[in-house]
Amino acid sequence: MATVASRQTTEDDITNAVVKSIQGTPDARLREIMTSLVKHLHAFAKDVQLTEAEWFEAVKFLTATGQKCDNIRQEFILLSDTLGLSMVVDLISHRKQAGATESTVFGPFHREGAPRFPAGGDMGTADTKGTPLVIAGRVLDTAGKPIAGAELDVWQSNSEGFYDSQLDTRDTLQMRGKYTTDADGRYVILTRRPVKYPIPTDGPVGAMLNATKRHPIRPAHVHFVVAAQGYDPVTTHIFDYDDPQLREGDTVFGVKESLIVKFHEHAAGDAAAAKGAKVNGPFLTADFDFVLQAAK
Amino acid sequence: MATVASRQTTEDDITNAVVKSIQGTPDARLREIMTSLVKHLHAFAKDVQLTEAEWFEAVKFLTATGQKCDNIRQEFILLSDTLGLSMVVDLISHRKQAGATESTVFGPFHREGAPRFPAGGDMGTADTKGTPLVIAGRVLDTAGKPIAGAELDVWQSNSEGFYDSQLDTRDTLQMRGKYTTDADGRYVILTRRPVKYPIPTDGPVGAMLNATKRHPIRPAHVHFVVAAQGYDPVTTHIFDYDDPQLREGDTVFGVKESLIVKFHEHAAGDAAAAKGAKVNGPFLTADFDFVLQAAK
Repeated sequence: MATVASRQTTEDDITNAVVKSIQGTPDARLREIMTSLVKHLHAFAKDVQLTEAEWFEAVKFLTATGQKCDNIRQEFILLSDTLGLSMVVDLISHRKQAGATESTVFGPFHREGAPRFPAGGDMGTADTKGTPLVIAGRVLDTAGKPIAGAELDVWQSNSEGFYDSQLDTRDTLQMRGKYTTDADGRYVILTRRPVKYPIPTDGPVGAMLNATKRHPIRPAHVHFVVAAQGYDPVTTHIFDYDDPQLREGDTVFGVKESLIVKFHEHAAGDAAAAKGAKVNGPFLTADFDFVLQAAK
Repeated sequence: MATVASRQTTEDDITNAVVKSIQGTPDARLREIMTSLVKHLHAFAKDVQLTEAEWFEAVKFLTATGQKCDNIRQEFILLSDTLGLSMVVDLISHRKQAGATESTVFGPFHREGAPRFPAGGDMGTADTKGTPLVIAGRVLDTAGKPIAGAELDVWQSNSEGFYDSQLDTRDTLQMRGKYTTDADGRYVILTRRPVKYPIPTDGPVGAMLNATKRHPIRPAHVHFVVAAQGYDPVTTHIFDYDDPQLREGDTVFGVKESLIVKFHEHAAGDAAAAKGAKVNGPFLTADFDFVLQAAK
């Protein structure tokens, strides 16, 4: 009652009331997640003594982030990536046995339906300006045994730093391919040298990077999902050792030392280095073995 | 290099890298907020060992929340309200001197441009089924001195639990009004008895409430922003003491004991109780004094 003096409600009372309200959640895992989320969300607001004006800026930022998303743009993944959350989840989710290939961010640019290529097949024909790059190696288990029939789903930007979905020709799949290992676990990919590129900065995430004086650049890399029956698939990249951006940092914190690979130069016609890929002119090679751990 | 054995990256390395990346933020307050946000966000993911599938559900949930927003629907405010964050921010932002009227959530239903009424003017004419309610009292400072010329911006649902923006006639302002205190700090509002109502449940927030087995109901209340020159404005409600929903809880955690008010019944024609408001038939009265603290 208005006329009765009562103790004033505190912010801790609210946290306790919200946590209590979700204790009836039937799904125990959802209950655990929501309880932790509420505690951390409230603790954040209390730690920084968030003002109403700041809270409203956050509401507007999150709304704009959602509204920037469409069938080829996922601004919330970009936000998660640039805040390092994606890499934290990646590390939690993919604890590797010693020797297994480390994972990194999936990113927002994967697309279904990449064409299948035989060993040495060229997934980079759309990129007429790039330097040919042969990526080759084996897919192995953690004991070093080759895995035959492993599938590599490969995608990357072109030599100007754009994924196909960022081009006017976005309906056409480009710079993507699927390859399968042979009986010795070997694969050979022909593509073009990737370059560093900025993540899309015309949305709320770009504004956040700008306000925090962070660059939007990812060092040059090729994306892979490598999968084989009976093994944990790995979502990862290989990074170009000679890209100076590696020293400037990756805006999504995806670089791991074990994923940095030297690209070697070869003169035109070096058939041994090309490993069966039909390359015209000088080219590069990158050797990388993927090591999968057995499925648990 | 792929051939060099290196220690594996950990999730704590990522948190440190992200925090370091934002230390160049020119705005010290933004730097403080972002640093705390990143630490809490990562700590949450680590605490619950968030899986990639759960992370992706969160991405989809937040995207849908943003995309549910339009010029009359703000799903992120609804999310903040139902997770108790709005009340935490309210309590942080509006620490009151003893005796000053406590604040509560602003909510998503305020609209600009409510019509001005003289003392006793009827802001509830659109609601032909509701019971007339005269809300009257004074606006005072914390020493008990009346504040003349204080403005009360008042809004509420109709007697069926809908705000004007939820009706087919949403372009017409209804159940809203602005009133000004007289030389003795007095105000008289004529409206209709509010009822409990569910917040909108056809979006992601509704799905969240359902999954956590929470009800979506707010107990019956009238919204106020009370402002006067030289004083901190207060955003608050009065709640109907006789609404049984008060015991079932408020889905946005907005109830404070000091804001619960008994509505008294009166027979038709009780002019003294009506305080100058032109009421037909039996009616209710609620007496409430708002106490503003001096602006700092």
